[in-house]
Amino acid sequence: MPCLINGTVADSISVADRGLQYGDGLFETISCLDGRPRWLALHLQRLLSGCERLQIPFPAAAQLEQEVRKLAAGTARCLVKVIVTRGSATVRGYGPSGAESPTRIVSRYAWPAAPAEPADSAEPAETGDAARVCGIRVGLSTIRLGENPALAGLKHLNRLEQVLAQQALRNSGYDEVLMQSSSGAVICASSANVFLVDQTGLYTPDVALCGVAGVMRRLVLETAAAAGIGVRVRTVTLHDLSQAQEVFLTNVRLGLQPVGWLHGRQLRAAQMAWRLRELIGATLP
Amino acid sequence: MPCLINGTVADSISVADRGLQYGDGLFETISCLDGRPRWLALHLQRLLSGCERLQIPFPAAAQLEQEVRKLAAGTARCLVKVIVTRGSATVRGYGPSGAESPTRIVSRYAWPAAPAEPADSAEPAETGDAARVCGIRVGLSTIRLGENPALAGLKHLNRLEQVLAQQALRNSGYDEVLMQSSSGAVICASSANVFLVDQTGLYTPDVALCGVAGVMRRLVLETAAAAGIGVRVRTVTLHDLSQAQEVFLTNVRLGLQPVGWLHGRQLRAAQMAWRLRELIGATLP
Repeated sequence: MPCLINGTVADSISVADRGLQYGDGLFETISCLDGRPRWLALHLQRLLSGCERLQIPFPAAAQLEQEVRKLAAGTARCLVKVIVTRGSATVRGYGPSGAESPTRIVSRYAWPAAPAEPADSAEPAETGDAARVCGIRVGLSTIRLGENPALAGLKHLNRLEQVLAQQALRNSGYDEVLMQSSSGAVICASSANVFLVDQTGLYTPDVALCGVAGVMRRLVLETAAAAGIGVRVRTVTLHDLSQAQEVFLTNVRLGLQPVGWLHGRQLRAAQMAWRLRELIGATLP
Repeated sequence: MPCLINGTVADSISVADRGLQYGDGLFETISCLDGRPRWLALHLQRLLSGCERLQIPFPAAAQLEQEVRKLAAGTARCLVKVIVTRGSATVRGYGPSGAESPTRIVSRYAWPAAPAEPADSAEPAETGDAARVCGIRVGLSTIRLGENPALAGLKHLNRLEQVLAQQALRNSGYDEVLMQSSSGAVICASSANVFLVDQTGLYTPDVALCGVAGVMRRLVLETAAAAGIGVRVRTVTLHDLSQAQEVFLTNVRLGLQPVGWLHGRQLRAAQMAWRLRELIGATLP
């Protein structure tokens, strides 16, 4: 895995790094196509905003951008992951001294294989809903998300909840799982945001108490609004899930991924996902 | 900082380590006196139990114990920190493959300076409560703890809540802060458990939804019970705090640390802490 640490080719960090000691940092996973990072400005903007919230000095923005571009260059399709930690501890204990110097880690990963989709989902047919049966199988995780407004929305390095959810996913027969907050609201999938469509329009869970404010989620919200599609951010319940005509997941790797089976129920619609995919240009390869 | 990684003297880990990527691991901070780790069996037992809950294979127990003893040897007083991560990622993404090989990191730290105590607190006087005014100044954090029974009690590497709480503590005039759960229950201090004493006896918050089940907390619970002191684990409210006659914090570094000022209120009693300190042999140096 090619990797730059503070601009230098390297593959290890100090054990004193607060990223390891406490998960004291943030990350971004950037989709790269034809040698170019996509939506890079949005990723950098979210990273900056996260650094501000955690009071981590934002590391050299120009170099960081250059490093991402460097690792993406020459590849047809890859993921570039950026990790920014508060840096090596200068004192013992949870509390930062304020004298730390952030660590920036930029690594390239091969584009992962997508979950297998039924053959009829490669293109939406024009002949009605039945032909649109497509998409991945999504269950409901028993692992819930703790609520903390001080951390909600951030793509930080404290990811044990997602680790446990995906650990349980293995051998479950599902491709992904939706996760609820400790209060029971539906928040997101283990590694994606979620959108629902019903007769009133398009909506996605609020991430003010937990969950990640995804870059693709933001693109969907902005694109839908610009296209005159009614879209809301609100509390989503299990009942909403059971009533939704269409459900899709979003992240920069999946783009917009229709859900074909939701907790045992078959969903036959993906029109909204296909339409927004086209508008955003987030078509899967 | 002297450090052994998987038994070898080293000071860096792979950037692919899931401890860094996701905080996917656990830690123990072990108090060492006269060259010997104290309560080591309890630390190893908690670590084993945490590994079981996260499904991380427990790393070579005999070597781990030997490594802790090796770093403690020859020091008058030190802290030895053990970190166990799930190891380097073998696949991309939150979900472990099950083929990872755990990383064990054992490092030694100098014994930290204790917060300054008023001069009259060095020994409990025999002349009544007024002479027992002592202890640290403790506030109430605005950072709350997200509730997750799947992670509660564990000393895992996802510690951003504690980082934020201690970040706010700096320049606050307090030595420590108590933290509430998202539901408002009082759970612990940012780096210690908490016990309260009132006319009904000794009690400490339940850590079934959040918080760490500390080794010193366990020792206090067991020692108090064995000594015939009534002790309960229960939900603790802000009202309980305001009514408590005596409050003390516990961890293996502090031992039992009386609270002298709690959120502005002066506490004049520390009898229970002194008595249990003596029984446990957890006197501060």
